[in-house]
Amino acid sequence: MLTRMERAAKLKNCTIDDGFWSYYVDLVCNTVVPLQEKIFNDAAADTEKSHALDNFRLAAGEKSGSFYGMLFQDSDVYKWLEAAAYALQNRPDAALEQRCDTVIGLICRAQEEDGYLNTYFTLERPNDKWTNLLEGHELYCAGHMIEAACAYFEVTGKNALLQAACRLTDHIDRRFGPGKTAGIPGHEEIELALLRLWRVTGEKRYLDLAAYFVNTRGQDPAFFEKEAQKRSWDYFGMDPKDTEYNQSHRPVRRQTEAVGHSVRAMYLYTAMADLAAETNDRSLYDACVRLYENVTGQKMYVTGGIGSTVHGEAFTAAYDLPNDSAYAETCAAIGLVFFARKMLQISPKGTYADVMERCLYNGVLSGMQRSGDRFFYVNPLEAVQGLSGQARPYSHVLLQRPRWYTCACCPPNLARLLGSLGRYAWGEGDGTVYAHLLLGGEYRAENGAVIGVQSAYPWQGKASFCIRALPENQAELPFTLAVHIPSWCSAFSLCVNGEKAAFPVRDGYCYIARTWRRGDRVELHLQIEPRRVYANAHVRADAGCVCLSRGPLIYCFEACDNGEELHCLRLPRSAAVSECTKDDPVLGRYIELDLPGFRVSGGEALYSFAPPQAESCTLRALPYYLWSNRAPGSMRVWLLETGERPQNDGV
Amino acid sequence: MLTRMERAAKLKNCTIDDGFWSYYVDLVCNTVVPLQEKIFNDAAADTEKSHALDNFRLAAGEKSGSFYGMLFQDSDVYKWLEAAAYALQNRPDAALEQRCDTVIGLICRAQEEDGYLNTYFTLERPNDKWTNLLEGHELYCAGHMIEAACAYFEVTGKNALLQAACRLTDHIDRRFGPGKTAGIPGHEEIELALLRLWRVTGEKRYLDLAAYFVNTRGQDPAFFEKEAQKRSWDYFGMDPKDTEYNQSHRPVRRQTEAVGHSVRAMYLYTAMADLAAETNDRSLYDACVRLYENVTGQKMYVTGGIGSTVHGEAFTAAYDLPNDSAYAETCAAIGLVFFARKMLQISPKGTYADVMERCLYNGVLSGMQRSGDRFFYVNPLEAVQGLSGQARPYSHVLLQRPRWYTCACCPPNLARLLGSLGRYAWGEGDGTVYAHLLLGGEYRAENGAVIGVQSAYPWQGKASFCIRALPENQAELPFTLAVHIPSWCSAFSLCVNGEKAAFPVRDGYCYIARTWRRGDRVELHLQIEPRRVYANAHVRADAGCVCLSRGPLIYCFEACDNGEELHCLRLPRSAAVSECTKDDPVLGRYIELDLPGFRVSGGEALYSFAPPQAESCTLRALPYYLWSNRAPGSMRVWLLETGERPQNDGV
Repeated sequence: MLTRMERAAKLKNCTIDDGFWSYYVDLVCNTVVPLQEKIFNDAAADTEKSHALDNFRLAAGEKSGSFYGMLFQDSDVYKWLEAAAYALQNRPDAALEQRCDTVIGLICRAQEEDGYLNTYFTLERPNDKWTNLLEGHELYCAGHMIEAACAYFEVTGKNALLQAACRLTDHIDRRFGPGKTAGIPGHEEIELALLRLWRVTGEKRYLDLAAYFVNTRGQDPAFFEKEAQKRSWDYFGMDPKDTEYNQSHRPVRRQTEAVGHSVRAMYLYTAMADLAAETNDRSLYDACVRLYENVTGQKMYVTGGIGSTVHGEAFTAAYDLPNDSAYAETCAAIGLVFFARKMLQISPKGTYADVMERCLYNGVLSGMQRSGDRFFYVNPLEAVQGLSGQARPYSHVLLQRPRWYTCACCPPNLARLLGSLGRYAWGEGDGTVYAHLLLGGEYRAENGAVIGVQSAYPWQGKASFCIRALPENQAELPFTLAVHIPSWCSAFSLCVNGEKAAFPVRDGYCYIARTWRRGDRVELHLQIEPRRVYANAHVRADAGCVCLSRGPLIYCFEACDNGEELHCLRLPRSAAVSECTKDDPVLGRYIELDLPGFRVSGGEALYSFAPPQAESCTLRALPYYLWSNRAPGSMRVWLLETGERPQNDGV
Repeated sequence: MLTRMERAAKLKNCTIDDGFWSYYVDLVCNTVVPLQEKIFNDAAADTEKSHALDNFRLAAGEKSGSFYGMLFQDSDVYKWLEAAAYALQNRPDAALEQRCDTVIGLICRAQEEDGYLNTYFTLERPNDKWTNLLEGHELYCAGHMIEAACAYFEVTGKNALLQAACRLTDHIDRRFGPGKTAGIPGHEEIELALLRLWRVTGEKRYLDLAAYFVNTRGQDPAFFEKEAQKRSWDYFGMDPKDTEYNQSHRPVRRQTEAVGHSVRAMYLYTAMADLAAETNDRSLYDACVRLYENVTGQKMYVTGGIGSTVHGEAFTAAYDLPNDSAYAETCAAIGLVFFARKMLQISPKGTYADVMERCLYNGVLSGMQRSGDRFFYVNPLEAVQGLSGQARPYSHVLLQRPRWYTCACCPPNLARLLGSLGRYAWGEGDGTVYAHLLLGGEYRAENGAVIGVQSAYPWQGKASFCIRALPENQAELPFTLAVHIPSWCSAFSLCVNGEKAAFPVRDGYCYIARTWRRGDRVELHLQIEPRRVYANAHVRADAGCVCLSRGPLIYCFEACDNGEELHCLRLPRSAAVSECTKDDPVLGRYIELDLPGFRVSGGEALYSFAPPQAESCTLRALPYYLWSNRAPGSMRVWLLETGERPQNDGV
């Protein structure tokens, strides 16, 4: 049996007031959510047509015309509603809430009598419902609808959408399950949503249905093939035999390698971890541990990006992490945050918080322009002017974030994650309050303590935790505050009420167990400095290379700072790296890293017996999440290292 | 006006007796030509069905059934016939000649009354002839038929196939040309064949038709698009708007960059160079020079391979030379030999002979197993166990030569090139006999001199040229022997009749002008040693890397000698390279290169702050052309270099 150690904080108990993240929380409220609302209403200039809300209007019979967009277009609206709910939590806005209620009304009117809800099938294929789980995304869209409903209920207390979600789920539950029709989603998502719905409603059928979808997956690897034989239509022309693509190649407990579409994989693993925690399922948890280790130990970019190839937006072989043709979809890094967060519930180990940090500060945040109106879906670790976006295998790699995509999965996904950071930062269980991320703001713990956090993270390693309140009539309260000590940190110190203090550190968490009084203050100091990062020697793409990091941030080199042809740069193994704090109107406040390096250049000949000549230059790096906010050009995370001296020092 | 400086030797004037190449000449005669004959007769075991000869039997009405194979399947037979002709030249074989005559009879009977000849169209699409020049390969197949006819006539003096070729050409000439139907081939080949047919027959219409096809190309970039609009069928589903793919994007004289399918490009450029030489066409020649410089100065692998991407088997951007996803088709390297050879005719510059050497000893020869029964189409510079052949973008890269392909273009192409090496080794013009390659054997010059060559090349830099005979009744003969001094050679010396001698060297040729007597002997000594080769710093894929060469041979590192994960090897900049002569039952006699190097290995973590540890190891390289003749595994040409010491010596 497993023990659940922790539960994520309720959002309403978290307030974000952070020197780094508040900018993004505000950006989501002020720019991202309103912009996406405009887009879904087709009211945004210079943007690809969405038609997402019109599809609902058509399905509700309130407008005439044809369905437009991807067959999972509905999910954009649901993800936006979820993000909007979090925005209302973070920055209450009566007008936005009013508009959300309007959209919710529309969704409810688009729902069919029997609870079915999917505008593509209602409008385009009313007789083909549930016949193409492989491609149809009906369960996927339902999952996002459920998540939106839970979020909106949690934030506003309004239950219209939640009731619609229950009607939809009941519809699904009547169809699928033991003794009913067999089925699994072609794109996982509903599993994790059903677990959430179960927690919100207490309806055990929803837990059982989640378990059914998780446990049925891969039991019959030919499921989608048989399904395809029964129908006469397809949408994408997906190969139903490619069972690894959607992780239906074997039962989930027997999966040991992360395979296939990386977003699908993350959503599945997230549900598996959540289900394992909710049902104390050891064998499911063991599979999660194996899969987590496989992803983060063999298939993850240093930015937290996952998915090495555009073909199927998928994982490839272990240690195959090409930088210039990476897919590393923003949604996949977000999914890895989900997965890691769920793993923390069972086992509060630093590795999970480390990976959340790695993703959030790097491969997730890189998905959004600083201005909040452009988005990367693909987050390469090397972009090459003249090749990226132009020639295969680099055609999917862009130098500049596009405004919008036909398949607009990533922008609302980013918005809902950034709007709900508190859930990732805080957790509680077994008499312990966990601070997984050093997120400035306030957490009102279930035990009644109110913990204020001031954080200079990630620029400085300083954070202070202050007990701002205790339960009424209590002068003191014993509990443990467990603070994550990131694995990048080589040394840290703690003061409690101004006195240096030592507390046990286990698995990446410092456990400060004491009896707290109002005004008690813990000062944390993490030693933070620029560091060189090396990939495991198995990683062919990074052979001979080094990258720079500082705290949780991975750095990169852009052409606008270093000139083009970044592959000609050489980073010396031992030169000192200097920090330079910038306050840029576009990039905001950040720390740039500079160091003396080299640039090689060649002669005329394509091949020669003379090695390229190297000249001194200054290498200038900025945090990866900021790349492509200035003049578009080449970018590189890993630089070739120079100054290896095997003859002298054996390296 | 141009001056034609040189003409390639007639094959019948060349005898090959060479320590290196005779093995391959014999292999072609004894193994490759018989094997391919078997395959085309569907009589070879464990081999993909060909049906190529049966297609002719069907078209001749001598068998019933359906066409099978690619729509250009006929060309396999023609290329084989051409190779067989050369085999008959090199190693006369009455039985083979008899069988060739039988095949020729069959081809002639498959030809239609009006001269039309193409079994696919005769059998499958009799009403669609000439309606799909983009994909149909009718002109391409005709070109190979013409080449086979010329070769068979030149070697045997028999003209049955030549007459059929003229009938076919006359048929084409009645259809296409000024004032007739407009047309250009979707796959170039007929142009260079027509030039050859013109030289064999003296029929000027054939020269004019070649000029028509060359000069019409790209005049109307929408040609194939318009053609596609007129028909209701396609075969490959090629995009007629992708005009760069087949070099029809602009008139040939205005082409400056090698683009598109690299074999198509080479065949076009070969014809352009040949036509420029035959017609003294300066503007056409200038275009050839630009294209040649573009190919060999920006888009050629160090092995002579060309075509950086599998997508369209095509050129990409300048200096984009990925090693692990290279296409570098054997046929393309062969085509580059053709092109370089034609350029020599106008301007006997060492660069052309250098490129012929680079291709022949590396990227061409690598196409064939030492046993002559397996062939690479794709010749990567890095093959990775577990990725190559399995995951995109490496799925086209194989670790082991396959036996045969559905599209069997490369094997017979190799056979005809290896069978006609004399043409590439020798040339003559303006009182000068050119030795472009140091090929052992004998050349009976047009001026009546018989020059014997003994060559230890490429293993040793020694070759001797001996005047074995002069024209009857002449005791002496003044002429110039121009010997190519390869650009890789840093020093060479010459002795004439045992005495050290100095002669002028211009553009890579040493011009030995003297009055020759029977028995005169020139001893050439090229300094040959292992050398490190560096790619131009613009080449991103080779950044920080070095490869080894010795003479014309590029070396590579195989897993069976060095262990897997070749990207972990480091080659020191200055360590001495030792030579070890091997006599291997499979690989033959060759020189292995050994040197002390390093292998790095990492710990458990995917990313760490500690650089990978390096341990000493021995690096073992063998010539690239020999790779994949032992246990299949990883291979790498370029290794990361170590021992750059910027602090110490400024590099």
